[in-house]
Amino acid sequence: MSVGGRVGGNGGNGSAGSGTGAGEIRKTVLPGGLRVLTERVPTVRSATFGIWVHVGSRDETPALNGATHYLEHVLFKGTERRSALEISAALDAVGGEMNAFTSKEFTCYYARVLDADLPLAIDVVGDMLTSSVLDPAEIEAERGVILEEIAMTEDDPGDCVHDLFAHTMFGDSPLGRPVLGTVDTVNSLTRDRIARFYRKHYDPPHLVVAAAGNLDHDAVVHQVRAAFDRAGALSRTDGTAEPVGPRTGMRAVRAHGRVDLSDRRTEQAHLVLGMPGVSRNDDRRWALGVLSTALGGGMSSRLFQEIREKRGLAYSTYSYTSGFADCGLFGVYAGCRPSQVADVLKICRDELDQAARQGLPDDELKRAIGQLTGSTVLGLEDTGALMHRLGKSELCWGEQLSVDDMLAKISAVTPDDVRAVAQDVLDQRPSLAVIGPLTDRQASQLHEAVA
Amino acid sequence: MSVGGRVGGNGGNGSAGSGTGAGEIRKTVLPGGLRVLTERVPTVRSATFGIWVHVGSRDETPALNGATHYLEHVLFKGTERRSALEISAALDAVGGEMNAFTSKEFTCYYARVLDADLPLAIDVVGDMLTSSVLDPAEIEAERGVILEEIAMTEDDPGDCVHDLFAHTMFGDSPLGRPVLGTVDTVNSLTRDRIARFYRKHYDPPHLVVAAAGNLDHDAVVHQVRAAFDRAGALSRTDGTAEPVGPRTGMRAVRAHGRVDLSDRRTEQAHLVLGMPGVSRNDDRRWALGVLSTALGGGMSSRLFQEIREKRGLAYSTYSYTSGFADCGLFGVYAGCRPSQVADVLKICRDELDQAARQGLPDDELKRAIGQLTGSTVLGLEDTGALMHRLGKSELCWGEQLSVDDMLAKISAVTPDDVRAVAQDVLDQRPSLAVIGPLTDRQASQLHEAVA
Repeated sequence: MSVGGRVGGNGGNGSAGSGTGAGEIRKTVLPGGLRVLTERVPTVRSATFGIWVHVGSRDETPALNGATHYLEHVLFKGTERRSALEISAALDAVGGEMNAFTSKEFTCYYARVLDADLPLAIDVVGDMLTSSVLDPAEIEAERGVILEEIAMTEDDPGDCVHDLFAHTMFGDSPLGRPVLGTVDTVNSLTRDRIARFYRKHYDPPHLVVAAAGNLDHDAVVHQVRAAFDRAGALSRTDGTAEPVGPRTGMRAVRAHGRVDLSDRRTEQAHLVLGMPGVSRNDDRRWALGVLSTALGGGMSSRLFQEIREKRGLAYSTYSYTSGFADCGLFGVYAGCRPSQVADVLKICRDELDQAARQGLPDDELKRAIGQLTGSTVLGLEDTGALMHRLGKSELCWGEQLSVDDMLAKISAVTPDDVRAVAQDVLDQRPSLAVIGPLTDRQASQLHEAVA
Repeated sequence: MSVGGRVGGNGGNGSAGSGTGAGEIRKTVLPGGLRVLTERVPTVRSATFGIWVHVGSRDETPALNGATHYLEHVLFKGTERRSALEISAALDAVGGEMNAFTSKEFTCYYARVLDADLPLAIDVVGDMLTSSVLDPAEIEAERGVILEEIAMTEDDPGDCVHDLFAHTMFGDSPLGRPVLGTVDTVNSLTRDRIARFYRKHYDPPHLVVAAAGNLDHDAVVHQVRAAFDRAGALSRTDGTAEPVGPRTGMRAVRAHGRVDLSDRRTEQAHLVLGMPGVSRNDDRRWALGVLSTALGGGMSSRLFQEIREKRGLAYSTYSYTSGFADCGLFGVYAGCRPSQVADVLKICRDELDQAARQGLPDDELKRAIGQLTGSTVLGLEDTGALMHRLGKSELCWGEQLSVDDMLAKISAVTPDDVRAVAQDVLDQRPSLAVIGPLTDRQASQLHEAVA
């Protein structure tokens, strides 16, 4: 029931497949256009099962802002066969973890369980997705929960500064609005609107089922089919319906030199300095992932070394990329006391400028490639991460890239590739979002960082 | 570099061993009293290596408060063979994750790497532990980082309310002081004091080496021995030195009916209502773990159902136990807007009172046992979690409990056991810690919750 989106220094582009250490991937498309993907990992005792929906906050009109996330909460509140308590008790009773998240481009419901409990997870999550009753009283109670979630997020300035930065970059457009919505939009969402949103977006062609772990593909397909057939979900659609393809398009982000400051009585100022990046369909994403890793992806990265290790100006600092279907962002974050904001921003800007001019020397390039390679392979042991790759790859690219292919893409990044993408991305005039209790003088210095 | 301590609804008592799904555990004691424990999991490609130190913030005098955590940071700043950058670059280059945490009773440094990189991890972490140079300039720079970490924690009221609650319960005693220290104590810690602390606590009898993953015990022992011998660490101690045993003792916690309110301009009020629990050596801990799971350990738990699902009063609410060597705490947390604090506290108090009188009905007991059993087995797939159990068990109990034995302890919990521990723990008068922007009227109602 959280909010997803950013990708830390590990690049995170790409997807898993049958290759280095990963299991066999199979895909079946059921009548009605429902895709089922599995990855078999016979060495574990668990499985993670998820259903992905091709809808996110960028599909909302201004008045509907927050509807995707609100609906995600409501689906836990009861079906024709199960109350909210019965849904959660079913998974709790076997020690399973069930949760969901909503991002700007998709929504995912998932459960991690012991392999023997996978049929139970499929039955429960499938039931939630296909047969929600959208009970009016439950929807009202959940409005309070979501308002509390918004308040909780407000109390986490290191998190919500990223929402502010999205607004800095995208303004009052779908990508610029918060996934949670606002107090006003959440208060004005009616059951009727949420129900229409549910009927419109939760049909088989918009869904991808993904499962990874100690499982059998045919058995999973059979159980998924049974769960959807019970609800009549597959027969409701035209039997020849085709799965909805990945989002396409190309969008120019024109924010340069903007500064957004949100005054808040926090101890630290939380800041994001960044610029337009590349979309997840852009071939330069591999080089940008390597560059971001070298700049702010680990303890040996430039920002960590310059800001934290040498100067002691911050505890947390990192860079990240976020790639959408048609555009992207590159940003650096730091949290520091207000008196140090100017120094920290100067270091960030200097590092970005230097990388824009010079790219990366061989040793740092090699280390960043090693870091991405190692962390990718280490990530293959987690069935949750494998399920995530399966579902996201199908929705984002309509195909699975094997781990070997992905590692090859990372290893193939050259100094010239990095220099080129550094010039394309980092040589743009940055924008800045800050949350914190700055004095007027400190606030007036912010514009120097984006001059 | 984080702070550890609480245990969520999953009970978290006990330790791993050779049994259900877990690997073979072996232990070797090297000359000088250095313990090396390994768990072999041949089905994974990774390993997690850690060194545990039997020292935590409860070992600090008031003036030294924060020294354990400060030292933990300083050990990343350079050895006789490696600079700070060389330490972090070594692990980053292979995609490893290296980190550390300090709790009230111990400190742990660890790295998760691909199995082929385990010798590297042992060499680097061993070097950090045995051969830190405690460079004065690095210590000064790190002081700024720690002050930023304190500021960052202050900005996370859902976290620091637990520090406030520890002070409510333990007052100005070692367990009542924050692991991070305060701005004042951190500012007054000198290199000399930190160096003395290092020499006093970081000798082989106080250390436990723990590793889990695709490894060979004899090879790990050989590599650990080489890392410590290079620094002369094993020969510095008397060759017949014995490992330091677990902490012992029994301490009565006498806080009842106390209320601590910290006024802060947050959106939510963050509250912990709790009472003395049981120590980690107390046989009642299994029943208390089951009880805590049923009360606030999952989405089907009583607090989640009553506060969030039925009434929509909070987004996050849970119960937890924390067991120290000689005492423990039981607490429930909720974050909600100030206008709802009185309602939320009333529900919490009612639920605690009801469980104190009646224990748990059979269906909830059975579900809680299933939840603890399933989550324990699911946890065995993570080499980090296995390493954690190995090290903590050795320090806390001086022995490893097998997973089968642990599952048997959980399954053996009876309704009578739960009723007895519920009466012992929940029938005590609670205390309360709150962070948030309460009005005078809201603040005056807090005392009703602990009446």
